[in-house]
Amino acid sequence: MKKYVIVGGVAGGAGVAARLRRLDESAEITVFERGKHISFANCGLPYYAGGVIENRDALFVMTPEKFKASLNVTAKVQHEVTAINPAAKTVTVKRLNTGAEVTESYDTLILSPGASPIRPPIPGINDDAIYTLRSVADIDAIKQRIDNPATKRVAVIGGGFIGLEMAENLHRRGIAVSIIEAVDQVMNVIDYDMAAIVQANIRSKGVGLYLKDGVKSFERRGTGLAVCLQSGTEVVCDAVLLSIGVRPDTKLAKDAGIELAPNGAIKVNEYFETSQKDVYAIGDAISFKSPLLNTDATVPLAGPANKQARICADNIVYGNKKAYCGTIGTSIARIFDYTAAATGLGEKALDRAGLPYKQVVTHAAHHASYYPHASMISIKILYNPENGRLWGAQAVGMEGVDKRIDVLAAYIKKNGTISDLAEFEQAYAPPFDSAKDPINMLGFIAENDRDGLTTVISWRDIPRYKEQGAFFLDARTPEEFGCGAIPGAVNIPHTSLRARLNEVPKDRPIVINCGMGLRGYITERILRQNGYKNTANLSGGFMTYNTVHSELSRLS
Amino acid sequence: MKKYVIVGGVAGGAGVAARLRRLDESAEITVFERGKHISFANCGLPYYAGGVIENRDALFVMTPEKFKASLNVTAKVQHEVTAINPAAKTVTVKRLNTGAEVTESYDTLILSPGASPIRPPIPGINDDAIYTLRSVADIDAIKQRIDNPATKRVAVIGGGFIGLEMAENLHRRGIAVSIIEAVDQVMNVIDYDMAAIVQANIRSKGVGLYLKDGVKSFERRGTGLAVCLQSGTEVVCDAVLLSIGVRPDTKLAKDAGIELAPNGAIKVNEYFETSQKDVYAIGDAISFKSPLLNTDATVPLAGPANKQARICADNIVYGNKKAYCGTIGTSIARIFDYTAAATGLGEKALDRAGLPYKQVVTHAAHHASYYPHASMISIKILYNPENGRLWGAQAVGMEGVDKRIDVLAAYIKKNGTISDLAEFEQAYAPPFDSAKDPINMLGFIAENDRDGLTTVISWRDIPRYKEQGAFFLDARTPEEFGCGAIPGAVNIPHTSLRARLNEVPKDRPIVINCGMGLRGYITERILRQNGYKNTANLSGGFMTYNTVHSELSRLS
Repeated sequence: MKKYVIVGGVAGGAGVAARLRRLDESAEITVFERGKHISFANCGLPYYAGGVIENRDALFVMTPEKFKASLNVTAKVQHEVTAINPAAKTVTVKRLNTGAEVTESYDTLILSPGASPIRPPIPGINDDAIYTLRSVADIDAIKQRIDNPATKRVAVIGGGFIGLEMAENLHRRGIAVSIIEAVDQVMNVIDYDMAAIVQANIRSKGVGLYLKDGVKSFERRGTGLAVCLQSGTEVVCDAVLLSIGVRPDTKLAKDAGIELAPNGAIKVNEYFETSQKDVYAIGDAISFKSPLLNTDATVPLAGPANKQARICADNIVYGNKKAYCGTIGTSIARIFDYTAAATGLGEKALDRAGLPYKQVVTHAAHHASYYPHASMISIKILYNPENGRLWGAQAVGMEGVDKRIDVLAAYIKKNGTISDLAEFEQAYAPPFDSAKDPINMLGFIAENDRDGLTTVISWRDIPRYKEQGAFFLDARTPEEFGCGAIPGAVNIPHTSLRARLNEVPKDRPIVINCGMGLRGYITERILRQNGYKNTANLSGGFMTYNTVHSELSRLS
Repeated sequence: MKKYVIVGGVAGGAGVAARLRRLDESAEITVFERGKHISFANCGLPYYAGGVIENRDALFVMTPEKFKASLNVTAKVQHEVTAINPAAKTVTVKRLNTGAEVTESYDTLILSPGASPIRPPIPGINDDAIYTLRSVADIDAIKQRIDNPATKRVAVIGGGFIGLEMAENLHRRGIAVSIIEAVDQVMNVIDYDMAAIVQANIRSKGVGLYLKDGVKSFERRGTGLAVCLQSGTEVVCDAVLLSIGVRPDTKLAKDAGIELAPNGAIKVNEYFETSQKDVYAIGDAISFKSPLLNTDATVPLAGPANKQARICADNIVYGNKKAYCGTIGTSIARIFDYTAAATGLGEKALDRAGLPYKQVVTHAAHHASYYPHASMISIKILYNPENGRLWGAQAVGMEGVDKRIDVLAAYIKKNGTISDLAEFEQAYAPPFDSAKDPINMLGFIAENDRDGLTTVISWRDIPRYKEQGAFFLDARTPEEFGCGAIPGAVNIPHTSLRARLNEVPKDRPIVINCGMGLRGYITERILRQNGYKNTANLSGGFMTYNTVHSELSRLS
């Protein structure tokens, strides 16, 4: 009879326990969880704070009682594993409510300790109005604070997914919310042009957005707490949610001599083995090779943790036969009216890795435009121009974002190319899609660029073209042009171009924009076939340009 | 200067014209369309009838005027091409409003004639209260009929996608609707267990559903029209919509000596060339090899037609360099509260082709079950047990169906396997999904079957097990069991099984069911590890069994 001990009872730990039982009915399986709950709905906590999830019990997906009855797994909450003795194959377990310590032996130990919110040593950080969010106990404390009518203003530090979800839920409760972010955009996993859409929407809700401004200190101002920023701005509030990221919770592993990656996460091989024999690790605390990069990455997401749990259990029981392929890090969040999602690599990751990439942006109706309530979805792909393979994708919109990112994630997992996107066969009926899905459009555009029919450029390329003395041609209607345009652009509607070719200089690069990209492409095709060689079409058209520049103009 | 002539100006024809222009600015491009409109929203017609799309002008995605202004394409409506002379490279064109005929020459001819609704020679078929739906003129006539308050009852003949969409839209208008279908289920592209869900919902709306009953004749009964069925039943109504399928519109091609497939569709090669030089064909009228079968198929869908148009134009201009890979036939429809969709091959197509397959069904919440408004989605995959490759997938549910089918379509296009589904990395946050997507679950279950952890069986396998004297074990709670169970099943809740193993016979096959499949799997794992070798778990659990048998019991 094997004895399996698992450290941590949330996504990864509970998952590995359940799978181990299915594979080995006779084993002794014990889960030690430091917190009060196993397998709780951690991704649901912001929605419980906001009242969207009304019933606190709904957060408890699994309880120790149910785990015992269904799977004969012993889950002990408020039990912290404080030390591992890999040589003796034992762990020291502390009962948190009594302080008593016991030693437990194991045949195989599985570490799923997760990650802790980062709490940097900023002056004033220990103020009791400053919260972080990881556990049910955390959200209980936050909820108690915001249920108090005296809590009228909350500052959220960190514009990542959790920070923004919390900001939305606090705003829903009628609380005045400010978001403070040290870098120049929210949601760092998406590119600036995509984040700009989300930022404009956040501002439109009356939520303060302080970008490119770090926190210098927290200072008491009577009953208020001032968040003092590097710029000198002070945001006075009644409570602070600190959500600037997480750090792998690996002190236990480190103390046991288990090898860590430079970022402090636990190094594992493709079977989830750590450097210590018979010790495995999974979840938010591990470092693993990215399938898209040649470097290791730590990806704290629930989906991968669950999938790792299943594979890890198989390797333990069957002897390391199932190699894990790594995660592409698909993520999503609903933020006010918009949903933002990403999969694979974005511009920042590609730039850091020095990988070659091109990008295409499209704005399109999320279903047939003639069917009621079509809303716009903006999607971007990044791909390797050398072989057409997708690096990553991002989308922002009110509807249909999850669907498009899921499809793109499937293609990325299967080494998909831009031609695969052109051939994608979506389920089309007017309430669901268009006959050409936006994903098809992205594939078409990228193929057209590859085939020399168009040169797709990004808003980031515009300054370079300006320096080259390019002629900027705006192919929209006069009415659209009059609503705003790229400075210096000349308006020649695409339907007039064939008669007005003499107005377009032949000796300068031509940068074309329309509203979203299609008319610009038609314009470019007319020009190319009339002897214009150096032409380019702005990806995402004026819509992308305008969104980006409206946001850029707010940064000092 | 090339001269391109296109027959048909809807999805395929308009698409090929637009792409040809982008590739060849100097060409003369003429589209002849027999109807009054080009590029109209044919998939939107049922919604216009139902008042969902209120504005008739919204149906006209493109007009000849816009086509000319934007793309310099000449589109002539009410112009029917009546003959092709491939030797002379000319077509005869009849102006339908005057009857005048002209001869037009071409360098390349592209046929995109579409398909016509089938109108079989049933007695009474020419009654003027019997409609078919293809064009805007058709929907205008139907709308005029149903706008008349005397039209209180409509019979829809044919339970395919268009018939059901029309039924829903007529019902929305307050009309009493009956659906009449010759085979034993609606939506023949999905399997019976999936169709059964849709059928129950249709009945719950008070819509009559006559299955496995063909039409013998139409007979006048005073102001009413009786649809007389083979069973003797008469459905008296004020109007009939005949929607039993379409037939490729290929008389023109046939008369020109162009080779047709046995089903009457135009044979084309991978570049869309017909048997006549310089004549190409695309869209609903062609026959093309299925990428999943070794036989030809005709797939009348808008998505493939649009993609074919782009590839066809490339082949015409660049000289046959882009091979078409065929279509997997992804389709979807919203029918009352449910959406039903399919991609790839279903049981009927696999049976016909004699291909080996296994199936898995899952019922799961469409997003995190603890997040409000989770609804159930039922998904089924069919795969090749020899290599794990997906043959097809189907889904029925209120939300999230299009997303799952789109992801599964992407995997099928990329030769995806059950292991790819297990590794699928979806965009997870509680409003969008669960940490394990139902697609992951399908992959997990199929892998478990492959790995010998479970034997997944279909409801169709139950009679065989009954004959073998199997012991039927229902692993649900007593409360669930008391609501209905498989006749003869013994209730041992999965949480009691470890203590009640002595009640399970060792010398008989064991068929396990729970509510949806998970507890049955846990039960099966306990039994297998306690020496039970011949066990099986019912895919989809009692939910699938009950839905199927409720429907089956209605058939005589």
